[in-house]
Amino acid sequence: MNIETCTARREALRRLMHEEGLTALLISQPANRFYLSGFELHDCQCNESSGCLIIMADGKDWLCTDSRYEEAACQLWEPERVFIYRSSSSEALNSLLKDLCGTKPIGVEAEHLAWAYIQRLEPGLGLKAADGLVEKLRAVKDEDEIRLIEASVALNYQLLDWLPSILVPGSDEGSVAWAIEKFYREHGASELSFPSIVAKDANAALPHYAPERPAVFSENCMVLVDEGCRLNHYCSDMTRTYWIGDRPDPRFSEMLERVQEAQRRAIAVLRPGITGREVHKVAVDYFASCGMEEYFTHSLGHGVGLETHEGPRLSPRATEPLVPGNIVTIEPGLYFPGWGGARWEHMAVITEDGCRIL
Amino acid sequence: MNIETCTARREALRRLMHEEGLTALLISQPANRFYLSGFELHDCQCNESSGCLIIMADGKDWLCTDSRYEEAACQLWEPERVFIYRSSSSEALNSLLKDLCGTKPIGVEAEHLAWAYIQRLEPGLGLKAADGLVEKLRAVKDEDEIRLIEASVALNYQLLDWLPSILVPGSDEGSVAWAIEKFYREHGASELSFPSIVAKDANAALPHYAPERPAVFSENCMVLVDEGCRLNHYCSDMTRTYWIGDRPDPRFSEMLERVQEAQRRAIAVLRPGITGREVHKVAVDYFASCGMEEYFTHSLGHGVGLETHEGPRLSPRATEPLVPGNIVTIEPGLYFPGWGGARWEHMAVITEDGCRIL
Repeated sequence: MNIETCTARREALRRLMHEEGLTALLISQPANRFYLSGFELHDCQCNESSGCLIIMADGKDWLCTDSRYEEAACQLWEPERVFIYRSSSSEALNSLLKDLCGTKPIGVEAEHLAWAYIQRLEPGLGLKAADGLVEKLRAVKDEDEIRLIEASVALNYQLLDWLPSILVPGSDEGSVAWAIEKFYREHGASELSFPSIVAKDANAALPHYAPERPAVFSENCMVLVDEGCRLNHYCSDMTRTYWIGDRPDPRFSEMLERVQEAQRRAIAVLRPGITGREVHKVAVDYFASCGMEEYFTHSLGHGVGLETHEGPRLSPRATEPLVPGNIVTIEPGLYFPGWGGARWEHMAVITEDGCRIL
Repeated sequence: MNIETCTARREALRRLMHEEGLTALLISQPANRFYLSGFELHDCQCNESSGCLIIMADGKDWLCTDSRYEEAACQLWEPERVFIYRSSSSEALNSLLKDLCGTKPIGVEAEHLAWAYIQRLEPGLGLKAADGLVEKLRAVKDEDEIRLIEASVALNYQLLDWLPSILVPGSDEGSVAWAIEKFYREHGASELSFPSIVAKDANAALPHYAPERPAVFSENCMVLVDEGCRLNHYCSDMTRTYWIGDRPDPRFSEMLERVQEAQRRAIAVLRPGITGREVHKVAVDYFASCGMEEYFTHSLGHGVGLETHEGPRLSPRATEPLVPGNIVTIEPGLYFPGWGGARWEHMAVITEDGCRIL
């Protein structure tokens, strides 16, 4: 990641901190940390943090980590403001924050830091919850990010071209999920962006199905596949629903047509200024007009970027207007318990006057 | 998982809760939740909890989750004490806990629950931090768990038999890591127990190396491989260090011999009653006698079970005596910055009069 880009992002964050009256902001959420510094998108394997940033109102920001990461940190950050802590990060950070801020207000990501950690960190400091500031910046993608997400989506399309060839009678949910993972990894993805969902018939009625005993495909069955990858740090997310065999159940065809029509109608209204709630309602209203509202049981979509699920949301609670640079999924679905379901998902970027499907 | 086993574990937990004066204990840490209920070892893919348990002093325990998991929950738990919450789990749990406990003391896992969640959950309740109670039980494995961990270790040995065949000049760190992952998954493992470490020469001096640009193996180089899998929910964890080629550097051979001797000495003292700190010191003292103490930079070992890193620890801070049923790694290492390193790791179960290598 480009160091100038990270610097500009921290300047934008400082403006938000100023509105909140914060002297400092402690950033420990991994994707936020990476977005602002290029340092470690994931926490390490040992249930430990790889480190945090202290963003300062005065512009002198710190990167704090342990000795394992010292070399990597110094390649990204002014070495004199790389702070290496030893065994107890909370004690060490308490001292550093006292030196930097005294009792002035320090924002923390309260949705991500454990209560016990806050209790160890807090004595003598003016900690306050300040969530969502970096997430607000991350919801608007710049041109480089859009290009990276497009590359991740392109690999997803490559997978979708190949996928029908392995959706055959005799194969099963688990083998296809594993084949998807291998395809992505062997085409350059660093990981799945989330565990793939491969769900046959009644299993497709469970929006977040994870099989214990994978079902075997038969001639003439439906299969819902929801998958995505992380390529060059950025995620993609797509869902398709297939019929295996040449005699699709008319009920399946009708369900899928309804889902795709709901998606077309939602995409038609996607533009700057509309709220996520209004877009969600377009899909709900269409399903209601078919008498099927009760079978659409989740929200219409979500932002995608460094995380698979981020802002903005297309949901009944999303009251912020969309802006150019937002990238969202549009993924209506219908789920009939005990029988089956369908979901169809595109990703789109909000443009100056509408949207562009990725 | 056997329902009676989970019931017995909850009874043991109730005894610990009684010592702490708790009316209820909220369990949300995924491995703890699974250990006590058989319900969902992982949280779901959407950065959300799959649910929690409320363990009650009076024996009437609750399983709380959202509607996606209702069917799975009712297969494991008395349906009249399965509590399904809708959008806000904290509000719903606040009401339920008020009904069950009033203002009496309710323990929470403060190391795992976010500060913001606690603030939403808390109003009117007597929440207090009560960490480590389930972890204390989990540190002592029963016979079924030992059998499951042995099966996971057996698959690890199968991998180690095959591994030298792919450690050849021209291959690289990334390809070997991916080959390890495929081997495990195609032999029944559900996932890696942690991201594999495959580190050549100077990279082997970094105890938690994760390659950005994987190094290519040459004729006559060293490679450290640390890997493990999850099989039937239980983890394994092993490290070996190899020389590729037929002319091992004498410095490499000496380093590896020192590491293996430190491991032999530590294993020789492993028995009930000794503390993790004392075992760690055996390795440190041996390295000190070779003038190499400063190159052993981490703790000697850790417990393994439903998580790769759990109790008990073999570290300078581990002052509890070991007991039969503990399963630990013994993994001394020496790391020479800029040149290379070696680590060698076995897993062992503490028995009545010593230990048995798994």
